[in-house]
Amino acid sequence: MRLAVLVAAISLSFAAQAKEGMWVPQQLPEIAGPLKQAGLALNPRQLADLTGDPMGAVVALGGCTASLVSPEGLVVTNHHCAYGAIQLNSTAEKNLMRDGFVANSREQELSAGPNARVYVMDQITEVTDRMLAATSPDQDGLARQKALEDTQKALIAECESEPGYRCTVYSFFGGQTYRLFRQIEIKDVRLVYAPPNSIGAYGGDIDNWMWPRHTGDFTFYRAYVGKDGKPAAYSADNVPFRPKHHLKLATEALDAGDFVMVAGYPGTTNRYALFDEFQNVSGWQYPVVGQHLKNLINLVDAAGKADPEIEVKYATSVRGWNNTSKNWDGQLEGFARIDAAATKRAEEEAVLAWLRGRGEEGKAALEAHARLVALSAETRETRQRDLVVGQIAGTGLLANIRGLYRLATENEKPNAERAPGYQERDLPGIEGNARQLERRYDPRMEKQLMAYWLAEYVKLPADQRVAAIDAWLGGNDAAAIQRALDETYAGTKVGDTEARLALLKADRAAFESSTDPLVKLAVALQPTVLALEDKAKARSGESTRHRPVYLAAVQAYKRSQGQGVYPDANLSLRITYGNVMGYAPKDGVAYTPFTTLDGLAAKATGEEPFDAPKAQLDAIAKMSAAEKAAIPVNFLSDLDITGGNSGSPVLNRKGELVGLAFDGNWESVSSNWVFDPTMTRMIAVDHRYMLWIMEEVFPAPGLVQELNAKR
Amino acid sequence: MRLAVLVAAISLSFAAQAKEGMWVPQQLPEIAGPLKQAGLALNPRQLADLTGDPMGAVVALGGCTASLVSPEGLVVTNHHCAYGAIQLNSTAEKNLMRDGFVANSREQELSAGPNARVYVMDQITEVTDRMLAATSPDQDGLARQKALEDTQKALIAECESEPGYRCTVYSFFGGQTYRLFRQIEIKDVRLVYAPPNSIGAYGGDIDNWMWPRHTGDFTFYRAYVGKDGKPAAYSADNVPFRPKHHLKLATEALDAGDFVMVAGYPGTTNRYALFDEFQNVSGWQYPVVGQHLKNLINLVDAAGKADPEIEVKYATSVRGWNNTSKNWDGQLEGFARIDAAATKRAEEEAVLAWLRGRGEEGKAALEAHARLVALSAETRETRQRDLVVGQIAGTGLLANIRGLYRLATENEKPNAERAPGYQERDLPGIEGNARQLERRYDPRMEKQLMAYWLAEYVKLPADQRVAAIDAWLGGNDAAAIQRALDETYAGTKVGDTEARLALLKADRAAFESSTDPLVKLAVALQPTVLALEDKAKARSGESTRHRPVYLAAVQAYKRSQGQGVYPDANLSLRITYGNVMGYAPKDGVAYTPFTTLDGLAAKATGEEPFDAPKAQLDAIAKMSAAEKAAIPVNFLSDLDITGGNSGSPVLNRKGELVGLAFDGNWESVSSNWVFDPTMTRMIAVDHRYMLWIMEEVFPAPGLVQELNAKR
Repeated sequence: MRLAVLVAAISLSFAAQAKEGMWVPQQLPEIAGPLKQAGLALNPRQLADLTGDPMGAVVALGGCTASLVSPEGLVVTNHHCAYGAIQLNSTAEKNLMRDGFVANSREQELSAGPNARVYVMDQITEVTDRMLAATSPDQDGLARQKALEDTQKALIAECESEPGYRCTVYSFFGGQTYRLFRQIEIKDVRLVYAPPNSIGAYGGDIDNWMWPRHTGDFTFYRAYVGKDGKPAAYSADNVPFRPKHHLKLATEALDAGDFVMVAGYPGTTNRYALFDEFQNVSGWQYPVVGQHLKNLINLVDAAGKADPEIEVKYATSVRGWNNTSKNWDGQLEGFARIDAAATKRAEEEAVLAWLRGRGEEGKAALEAHARLVALSAETRETRQRDLVVGQIAGTGLLANIRGLYRLATENEKPNAERAPGYQERDLPGIEGNARQLERRYDPRMEKQLMAYWLAEYVKLPADQRVAAIDAWLGGNDAAAIQRALDETYAGTKVGDTEARLALLKADRAAFESSTDPLVKLAVALQPTVLALEDKAKARSGESTRHRPVYLAAVQAYKRSQGQGVYPDANLSLRITYGNVMGYAPKDGVAYTPFTTLDGLAAKATGEEPFDAPKAQLDAIAKMSAAEKAAIPVNFLSDLDITGGNSGSPVLNRKGELVGLAFDGNWESVSSNWVFDPTMTRMIAVDHRYMLWIMEEVFPAPGLVQELNAKR
Repeated sequence: MRLAVLVAAISLSFAAQAKEGMWVPQQLPEIAGPLKQAGLALNPRQLADLTGDPMGAVVALGGCTASLVSPEGLVVTNHHCAYGAIQLNSTAEKNLMRDGFVANSREQELSAGPNARVYVMDQITEVTDRMLAATSPDQDGLARQKALEDTQKALIAECESEPGYRCTVYSFFGGQTYRLFRQIEIKDVRLVYAPPNSIGAYGGDIDNWMWPRHTGDFTFYRAYVGKDGKPAAYSADNVPFRPKHHLKLATEALDAGDFVMVAGYPGTTNRYALFDEFQNVSGWQYPVVGQHLKNLINLVDAAGKADPEIEVKYATSVRGWNNTSKNWDGQLEGFARIDAAATKRAEEEAVLAWLRGRGEEGKAALEAHARLVALSAETRETRQRDLVVGQIAGTGLLANIRGLYRLATENEKPNAERAPGYQERDLPGIEGNARQLERRYDPRMEKQLMAYWLAEYVKLPADQRVAAIDAWLGGNDAAAIQRALDETYAGTKVGDTEARLALLKADRAAFESSTDPLVKLAVALQPTVLALEDKAKARSGESTRHRPVYLAAVQAYKRSQGQGVYPDANLSLRITYGNVMGYAPKDGVAYTPFTTLDGLAAKATGEEPFDAPKAQLDAIAKMSAAEKAAIPVNFLSDLDITGGNSGSPVLNRKGELVGLAFDGNWESVSSNWVFDPTMTRMIAVDHRYMLWIMEEVFPAPGLVQELNAKR
C-alpha cells in the first residue's frame, strides 16, 4: 500500500508498522486497494456513502466522536467524552461520576445539558472557489482574513437557512482547499447509561495514555428530536431520533491481526508544520506552558482537598489540564526518542533543496516558506504576553462576562456581519455557557487562578504590559493583585446566575455604564483582547496566503518520492484502518494486543483510580479461564488517530462495531508532529467488555436488549 | 518430566513454566530422561562424572560459582563476584572499579587477595552414618549439636589430612543426609580482566533483579598453584593451574527455546520451611530488618558523598545491603502476588492431615512438627535482641578484634577441639581478614554504624539487656552512646593494621589484661556472644533431631502425590536445566528472552549506573542491524537458581559455554520460599556479548586468543 512514511531516519526494527494516514472520505477510491488488502470484507465503495451504512451511523459530538447503535437514537461514546454531562447531573449527594447512572426507562434519561449536541453527517460540498473569490493579492493579512471569514459566514448562513442543520467550513492544507460540511444538529441529548468512574475511568490519570490498560471508557446517550422528526431544544415532548442507519455489534470474535477501521473527527495534527513552528512548540509551549498547567492542577488539588465543592466544580478543568500536560510530556519524550527535530529539519531541508533545484518554478514556494518563517518569528516575540493575557481574560466568570459584553457589541451589527461565535445561531450556546457556569465556578478558586496568572503578568516587560490591567491592579506586587481580586469578586453581582442571564439582553451602554467591578474589568479589557485577536487574524490571513503555496510544493515533493499525501487533521471526518497488534515499547519488552479481566483484577488496590467495584472483582473471581478469555478488556491496533477521535466506533472487516477508540499509547502522542510507525498504537475498549459490564457488573438489561446483543 | 510443582493454588495462565528443581548430582540418573527431553545432546551419564568434562570445569569461589575456561587455569565468573578483589586492588587514584582492568601479561595479573579461593571438585562421600553415630536420644540440643560438630570436625580433619584440599560436610533435608565434599583449594587467585563498572555493573542497583537487562557481568581470574602443581599461597614463583578439563565456548548460536543447563553452588532456599518459619521471615525479617538495611545504606551514602574515602571503603557493604534489601522487597512483593502464606499453610495442612490419617504411623512426624513449631516460637521471642546484639558485635573492627580474641581462647585447646572457624586450617582466612580490614574500615563510619545499632539497643526491654554493653555505655541516651564510642575509637590502637596483626599471636591473657578500650569491649562482650551462640546451637541440635523426621513425612507425602523431591539449596553442587524463554510479568506485557545492543544504547544516559562507555556507544552506532543481531547482551531462561549460583556457567545442549548466570528476575526472588513456575527466570550474560566487549570495547586480545574464541 502507499504508506506515507514521513520518518526515514528512525530505526524500523519491528515488522509491525502503524498505518499512517487520516484519510478524507474523498480519498476512499485511492485507498480502496489497501483497505481490501488489510482485510476489509465490505466493498470499499460502500464506505464512500457517508450517509449510508455504516458511515452514516458515525456522528460528531463536538470534540469527540460517537455512533448511533439502535433504531431508537441510542448513541455510544466514551465515558470521558460524556464526563461533562455526567458532572452536570452530579451533586455532592448524588454523584453520578462516583456511582454511575442507569436510566431504566426513557423517563429516567437525563438531559446532557443545553449545549450537548449530536451532529449527524448530511452533506459535504467543496467551496474553495467561493472562499478564494473574495480574496485579492493586495489585501493585507487582516483584510484577507476578514474577507475569508465573511465568505465563510455567508456560506454557513446560506447552508443553515433550512433549520435543523449545523454547517462548518473546514480548511485543508492551510487554506488550499475548503469544504462545507452540513450536519443535522440534534440539540436534545440525554444521558442513558454511564458506568461509575471505577469502571469508566479505571486507572484514571495514572493509566491515561498507558498500556496495559483496563478502562471501561464507554457511555450511552440518546438523541431526541421534535415530534416532527426535526431537531429541537430539550422538551419532555421530544421523541427519540430514528436514524436511517445504526451500527450493529460484531457477530465474530476479534483477534490479534484482524482488520479494524475507525471513522471519526480527529482534531489537530501538525505533520506539515514548519521546522520553526515545531521548535516553538517543543522548545516553549510543551515545556513552559506545560509547567503552568501542572501548577494550576496543584492549586486546584490543594483547594479541592479542603473543600469537596471546589473539587466537583473544577473536576473537568483538572481532568483537561492533566490530560494536556501528560500528553505534552509524552510528546516531548517521543520527540527525544525519535529525534523529531532532526527528522523535521531534514524533511524540510529536502523540500527546500528540491525547490531550489527547480529554479524559477520553485521560487514562489521558497518565497512562501520564507514568509511563513517570518510569521512564526513574529508569534514568538509576544508569546509569553499573549499566553498570560489570554489566560487572564479567559478565566471562568471574567471570560463569561466578556463574552456577554462582546455579544452586546456584536448585536449592534446586522446578524451576518457579527463575528463568528456571536451570531444568532450561537445564542443557545452562549446562554448555556452563562447558565452552566454555576456548576463550574467558585469565586475562591477563580481568585486563586487569576492570582496565579496575574503574578506572571507583573513579570512582563514594560512595553508588553496592558494599561487596563495595570490600572485595575494599581500596583505591581502580590498585595496589589490580592487587593484588586478581593475588591472585584467581593463587589460583583454577576457571579449569580440570574444576574448573569439578565446580561444576555443588556446592550452595550448597559455594560459600559455598569458599576459592577467585574463587568467594568471585562469592559476595560475588551479593546486589548480585540487588538490581540486582530493581530492573530492578520497572521492567519498571511498564513492562508502563503501556506497553500508552500504545501503544494511539499505535496508535489512527496508524490515525487512515491509517498501518499493526506491533509492534517482539522476536526473533519477521517478514516483510518489497519490491524489489531501490539508493539515493543523497548528492548526486551513486548506489549500484547489484548488485556484481560485477570489483569484488571490484578491492578485493583481498592484505592481510586484502581478501585474496581467489588461486584466486578467478585464476578471475575467466579469465572472460569475460558469465560474470562472470551471477554478482552482493551485492545491495541496500528490505527492513526488523535484527540477528537475519542469515542470513535471501531469497525471490523464487516463494518460491525467491535469497540470504541479512547486513547493513543504514550509513545504515539509525538506522532501529532512526526509520525512514528513503530510505536503508534490506538487503544480501544472491547465491545465484549462493554456488554459484560452491562450484563453482569453494572446491569442495564433494557440497554442490552436494545443493542440486540448476543454474546 | 517429574516437575515437582509445590504451588497448586496459583494461576497457570502461561504455557511456559520454569523447571523447578536444584538437583543434586546423585539424582542425575533420575533426571536423565527429562534432560534428554528438554534438549540435552550429551549423554546424561557424562554429567554424572563430577571430575570429568564438562562438570569438572565448574568450580566454587565461596559464595559464587565460576568455571575453568582454558588449559592455563583461566577462570570466568561474574564481575559482581570478583568485586571484592577489584575493590581491594583499587585506590582513589587507580580505581579499577571505575576504569576496569586488563592484564596484558601474566606479570600484570593482580592478586585477588589472601582470602580468594578457587575450589575444584574432587570427591563426594556420603557420611550420614558417621555423623549420626555420635548422637543419642538422651542428649539435649546443645550436646547433640556439639556432638555433630565434633564429628564434622573429625571428618574434615581426616579429609584434609592430605594438604591442598578443603573439605566440607553438607546437611540435606535438615540433617537427614550428610555428604562430605572434598575440593582442591587453590589459594593463589589473580585478577586477569575486569570491565569497568559502566559495563560490568551497567544498570547498577536500579537494574538489579530487573528485566530488561544489559549488564556485562563477567570477570576473569587465573588460578595459580605451586611449581609442584599443588595448591600454595600467593607467590611470584607459582604457575598457572592446569585443569584436567575446561569449558569451551559455544560453537552454535543460542536461540529462544534452546536447551540450557547450569551447574553451580546455590546457597539457600527454604522451600521445606514450616509455615510458622515462613511467617517469621515474611512478617518480621524482610520488612523490619530490611528497613534497618535501608537506613544503613542512607547513613553510608551521606557519609560517602562527603568523603570519597568512605565511599570506596564501604562500597562492598553498601552493595550487599542494597542487594539484600531489594531482594527482600521483591520476595515480599512475590509473596503477595502468589499469596504465598495461603499456599504455604495449605501445603503444610495437607501434610499434617495426611499424617493424621495415618494413625500411629504418622504420630512421630506430627510430634516432630510440633517440636519444630515450638522452636520457631522460641526464636521469635528474642529475635530483636539477637539482631541488635549480633549487629553490634559484628561491626567491622570490633568484630575483627573479637575474632582474634576468640582465636586466642580457642588456641588454648588442641586443634581438633577448637570451634569451627578457629582451627589451624582457618588461620590464613583470619589473618587475611585482619589485614584487609584497612581497606574496609574507617573509624568515623564505624562509629556511625555502631551508634545506629546502639540506639536500637537502648530500646530493648530491661530483661533482654546485656550487662557488658550497659556498663560500657554508662547511660541510656544518645549522649552516652556518643561518649562511649568517642572514647573507645579515639583510644584504640588496633585500628592500625600492624597492631591488629600483632594480636594474631597474642594469648588470652594478653587480651584480658589489655588496656586498649576496643579490646576491652571485645573481651567484655565475648561471654554474651558465646552464650547467644550456644543458645542458637541448642536450637540447631533440636532442629536436626526433629526436622529429618518431619521432612521424611513431607517427602513421602509428595511422592504419594507424584511430585519430585530435591533438597533445599545448601551451598553444595546442584544442577538445573530448562530452556531459553521470556515470561509475562503482567497482563498485556511480555518479556522477550534476549536483549540487544540497541536496547543497551537506549538506556545510556551518561550518568552512573547508565554510563555506557563512549567507545561502546560509538561501536554500536557504527554496526549494521545484522551485526548487532549477532550479539545478544543478556538472556532469560526458566532455570531454578538462587544466590551462590552467581557466575555459574550456562551450558548449551553440547555442554559448551553460552553465558554466565548472574541474577534472577524480580518476580522470581520469592521462589526461595514458594516456587512460582510462571515467573521464575534466570538472567545470564551472553558469551557473544562478553567476547565482543573483549574484542571491540575494552580489548583484551590475549584473553580472546586464550579462549580460542571464534565469532
